[in-house]
Amino acid sequence: MNKTELKQFLSERLSFWQNLTEQQKNMLVDNATERTFTQYSLIHNSLDKCLGIILLKSGQLRIYISSEDGREVTLYRLYGGDICTLSASCVMDAVSFEVLVSAEEICQAVVLSALAYRQLMQENVYVKAYTYELTVQHFADVMWSVEQVLFMGADKRLAIFLNDEIAKTGSNVIQLSHEQIAKYMGTAREVVSRMLKYFATEGIVTLSRREITVVDKKKLRSLM
Amino acid sequence: MNKTELKQFLSERLSFWQNLTEQQKNMLVDNATERTFTQYSLIHNSLDKCLGIILLKSGQLRIYISSEDGREVTLYRLYGGDICTLSASCVMDAVSFEVLVSAEEICQAVVLSALAYRQLMQENVYVKAYTYELTVQHFADVMWSVEQVLFMGADKRLAIFLNDEIAKTGSNVIQLSHEQIAKYMGTAREVVSRMLKYFATEGIVTLSRREITVVDKKKLRSLM
Repeated sequence: MNKTELKQFLSERLSFWQNLTEQQKNMLVDNATERTFTQYSLIHNSLDKCLGIILLKSGQLRIYISSEDGREVTLYRLYGGDICTLSASCVMDAVSFEVLVSAEEICQAVVLSALAYRQLMQENVYVKAYTYELTVQHFADVMWSVEQVLFMGADKRLAIFLNDEIAKTGSNVIQLSHEQIAKYMGTAREVVSRMLKYFATEGIVTLSRREITVVDKKKLRSLM
Repeated sequence: MNKTELKQFLSERLSFWQNLTEQQKNMLVDNATERTFTQYSLIHNSLDKCLGIILLKSGQLRIYISSEDGREVTLYRLYGGDICTLSASCVMDAVSFEVLVSAEEICQAVVLSALAYRQLMQENVYVKAYTYELTVQHFADVMWSVEQVLFMGADKRLAIFLNDEIAKTGSNVIQLSHEQIAKYMGTAREVVSRMLKYFATEGIVTLSRREITVVDKKKLRSLM
């Protein structure tokens, strides 16, 4: 995209655009870069450096936390059209915890630099209100994930996960390893394997190498 | 407090006060009420009705989530001088999850009605930015609690909890039942009892009826 196209793109995606001065608009355009993230790449680690605000055009981002021994819990996922604020956690003084962001699919995005965005948030209260509101919105997803992990039984959680996957892809076949599913669910691979075997004996799924096929959706949903 | 005192109180506690019109200031004063909450009372349940913004003068609030079978996880606590925004979750469209707020000690507070506050947030972007920023700040505490529950071993978590308690009260004696500690930690009573017995055999604490005395702080902290 050239500058004019980039400006057009930002004006359509950022609801505070009309509340910016002409100078602030140009500053934002000058600090926006087009980026492609390869699949499974770690694109933000709040300990490391601060990427900036990600305006996702296509693909899928996963926002998660990780323990010292490598256990992961997925907080939420973002898709084309979504905006990721936690990848710019350094610009929000109120965000003082560590999150990781990875690309789950190849992603096309426009990234607003953290430094420029921080300045804008300080200058313009509309930008500040917008950014914090969006962050709070995502926390509703975080709370949902946390409640799942904390409160639900593994059968219920796996049923919800499989159901979400087939709803998202439109196919009854899920091409994920038990390890990957365990990571997404924030549980152990053993738990997933055991539960999938149980689902297979119940006639809910059939299992083959790196493939899970849901054969009884009704029964699957009865577990949710 | 009379109206003048109430206005003075609000002007000192709300950083957006200077950005309100005279009319908005008066509206807020007219919709502020002094409240006393008795110890252990449930003061907000987002399913039920929406209390409003709580400006805590003294006492202690506990913000937590609860599972269908009654398991609780404490998200964070607020003390005198703090402001509770999640008790007005209905005024923030971005907050779509359920939280509970209870008074852990007798509390003195000023409550701003949800209806009036909602109007103010819509009218005044400074109020909106302030409220969402404060909410995001509290989420840093939420994430901390969640990571504790998800990732840490029970020994580490109990050590942190006991250390926090003695730091807060300034006494080595903790007058809480194992049941209460389990609720605060979001774990089972059995886990707490087992771990406390282990701490006792290690010479870290001594146990008596409804009392835990920390006798070796250094050893306790070595577990954290």
